[in-house]
Amino acid sequence: MERTYTADIEHHVGERVRLSGWVHNVRLLGKVNFLVLRDASGTCQVFLSKAEADQLEGVLPESVIEVEGTVLAEPQAPGGVEVHEPVVTVLNGVMEGLPFPINKPEIEAHLDTFLDYAPVGLRHLKRRAIFRLSAGLMAGFRDYLAGQRFVEITTPKIVASATESGANVFSLDYFGRPAYLAQSPQFYKQTMVGVYERVFEVAPVFRAEPHATIRHINEYVSLDAEMGFVCDHQDVMAVLSDTVQAMLAHLRENFPRELALLQVQVPAVPETIPQVYFPTAQQWIYEHHGEDCRDEPDLAPQHEHWLGEWAQQEHGADFVFVTGYPTAKRAFYTHPNPEDPTYSNSFDLLFRGTELVTGGQRLHRYQDYIQALQSRGITDLAPFEGYLQAFRYGMPPHGGFAIGLERFVMQLIGAQNLRETTLFPRDLNRLTP
Amino acid sequence: MERTYTADIEHHVGERVRLSGWVHNVRLLGKVNFLVLRDASGTCQVFLSKAEADQLEGVLPESVIEVEGTVLAEPQAPGGVEVHEPVVTVLNGVMEGLPFPINKPEIEAHLDTFLDYAPVGLRHLKRRAIFRLSAGLMAGFRDYLAGQRFVEITTPKIVASATESGANVFSLDYFGRPAYLAQSPQFYKQTMVGVYERVFEVAPVFRAEPHATIRHINEYVSLDAEMGFVCDHQDVMAVLSDTVQAMLAHLRENFPRELALLQVQVPAVPETIPQVYFPTAQQWIYEHHGEDCRDEPDLAPQHEHWLGEWAQQEHGADFVFVTGYPTAKRAFYTHPNPEDPTYSNSFDLLFRGTELVTGGQRLHRYQDYIQALQSRGITDLAPFEGYLQAFRYGMPPHGGFAIGLERFVMQLIGAQNLRETTLFPRDLNRLTP
Repeated sequence: MERTYTADIEHHVGERVRLSGWVHNVRLLGKVNFLVLRDASGTCQVFLSKAEADQLEGVLPESVIEVEGTVLAEPQAPGGVEVHEPVVTVLNGVMEGLPFPINKPEIEAHLDTFLDYAPVGLRHLKRRAIFRLSAGLMAGFRDYLAGQRFVEITTPKIVASATESGANVFSLDYFGRPAYLAQSPQFYKQTMVGVYERVFEVAPVFRAEPHATIRHINEYVSLDAEMGFVCDHQDVMAVLSDTVQAMLAHLRENFPRELALLQVQVPAVPETIPQVYFPTAQQWIYEHHGEDCRDEPDLAPQHEHWLGEWAQQEHGADFVFVTGYPTAKRAFYTHPNPEDPTYSNSFDLLFRGTELVTGGQRLHRYQDYIQALQSRGITDLAPFEGYLQAFRYGMPPHGGFAIGLERFVMQLIGAQNLRETTLFPRDLNRLTP
Repeated sequence: MERTYTADIEHHVGERVRLSGWVHNVRLLGKVNFLVLRDASGTCQVFLSKAEADQLEGVLPESVIEVEGTVLAEPQAPGGVEVHEPVVTVLNGVMEGLPFPINKPEIEAHLDTFLDYAPVGLRHLKRRAIFRLSAGLMAGFRDYLAGQRFVEITTPKIVASATESGANVFSLDYFGRPAYLAQSPQFYKQTMVGVYERVFEVAPVFRAEPHATIRHINEYVSLDAEMGFVCDHQDVMAVLSDTVQAMLAHLRENFPRELALLQVQVPAVPETIPQVYFPTAQQWIYEHHGEDCRDEPDLAPQHEHWLGEWAQQEHGADFVFVTGYPTAKRAFYTHPNPEDPTYSNSFDLLFRGTELVTGGQRLHRYQDYIQALQSRGITDLAPFEGYLQAFRYGMPPHGGFAIGLERFVMQLIGAQNLRETTLFPRDLNRLTP
């Protein structure tokens, strides 16, 4: 008999079906006994007589089973259907109790305990839903950009030089030579603008930042895009807005059950996302919150939080662009604002008060790169040779952005910690499982 | 004026258009002069009068330009259209000659030279086409599996223990602790079968093999899939066949121009791919090619080549499965053939005589893992703790496969070296660009 998924049994009322999955729950009440079977599509309730229940004695939760039974309409059962007269076969029995229950509405374990037992903890229905949304955001990102002439690329993660800065990079031994793990595909995605004009990549990036915060991990998935023939960063921001819109639309269309289970309100992306110029934002913070950060080179999390509140109150928007971060504090490849070169044609996109995306227009002239590197005291250009080659041989004005996947999911579902939206997080203390 | 792509100008005959791109070629013949502009979509010919041509003196190939001009039907021009009365604006001029021409039908540089100059060499039309096919195979893989209930996952590349074997693994310093780069997502994709039943991942893998062959590199893209509730490896092979079929169909439908340019014949995937049992293959090689490899634990490249010829001659097939590799030589998680435990429920898929995919059924019982590890002399189970957890808590019979992306493109286009189908290859000698 062909397997039926639990999500489909409502179409088989009156028929015998074969189900496969895990023992999600067993409730033995004497005359009325229930087994809840979980498969990839959901759960379903199996009614057991006392004799049938007795046969299941010792079958612990998470045992892998097959059930052949008859589907009956049962208004009181979850989903309105129930399986009766079951023949249960244990495919792989579990001998040990779980470290914590995974069949309750919520996981009731400390985050560290959960992460230690992630291989089984991730089977919890809500955890499963989280990472389906994660997959959905990736699919939405790629589908949208592929439809906009962006070409997917795969670039090396073992590199000869640090991308963003010399610090915070993992080093490794590459056949006796020093090498590093890529902090971003930045150099390569820019290079590939010379080939395809528009490119994207979904891949891991590695940051050896020795801090432990709720919103940083040391390996994460970066959704990168880069595009040529832009006027300035505003063109990039327009594509980013449309991309975020498409990603959220993809979730709305394809994951209604997961969104409902996690009680997620998918935000609307405004036709034009509000934006604020960096020094203006600092002035506003000073005037409205009394904190004078006007000499600081970046925004602190609290500042971003206030700007998020402002966007919500003034524009009803979950998103806000901050543009014009100080040129001196952004990466050397950042294009200055031609009319105000202290500030740059860069931006961050804040989502519900937290940085979600970083991007901007890049330098595109070879000489500008030489000057930018020299002005930062970098005189040995050898590590940049391959990168600079692209600019020696003709690059158009271009820019791009990078979305942090786990951060997006975190903000979307309102998780308290980035580790809740990362399958197997890597941080200062955690390298397993 | 909005930009028009060169591929679209045939729809604008008689109109003024604005083109953006690179100087692909300039041919100055005196009274008749041509500029060939290249953009992401293709190339187009711009007719220049002597005066217009004079203005372009010193504008070297790969300079970034904009051209406004009138589209005329011109049967003798490539594509049947040509741009006349151009106004050319140089956006970013190139000052240096190229290391080798990239506007000839073929790249005429030694592979090493090409790779040294990949940032510009990849702009060659044929190179560009290669990596569009690469992107197409990834999209085809994901689209097909997502439609078959597979969930995309992203798993860590920094890991605490070597996956496949202790050798051939890159080690790094993880905040003072030893760590490794993942040789495959094997442990994690199996673990995630316990969560979603069916999962896939497209991500880099890292192999520190210190050899230099035309068909190995040290970082490549692995297209991984894993699925639960299989009977044995034959179920996995059936999904793999359909996946390969879908990937090739995706190319046929979406990349006809690239396939034509590269003169690629996309192979048909037989309804049932021929298969041969490992010891039978060795016996056949002995009988038909006189080489006695019957005691060897694996097939050599020459053996694969012969089996590819056999599949072609006997079945007209570009693909052939070899099943039943010796259990002792496959990874410890490989499921033995229950009827012949010396051999395993594993397979390789050969494409045109070269291994393209490795896969098989895995062990799924906790005790089987303990025994398999112990029988290989592995007594310290601590590094496997997270992995084994999945099996302690109920795993269904499962299996999966891993396709090498660059290898697939190499065999498809008939490239001589895997480095031709890798954007920025990493090997024993090469860490840049």
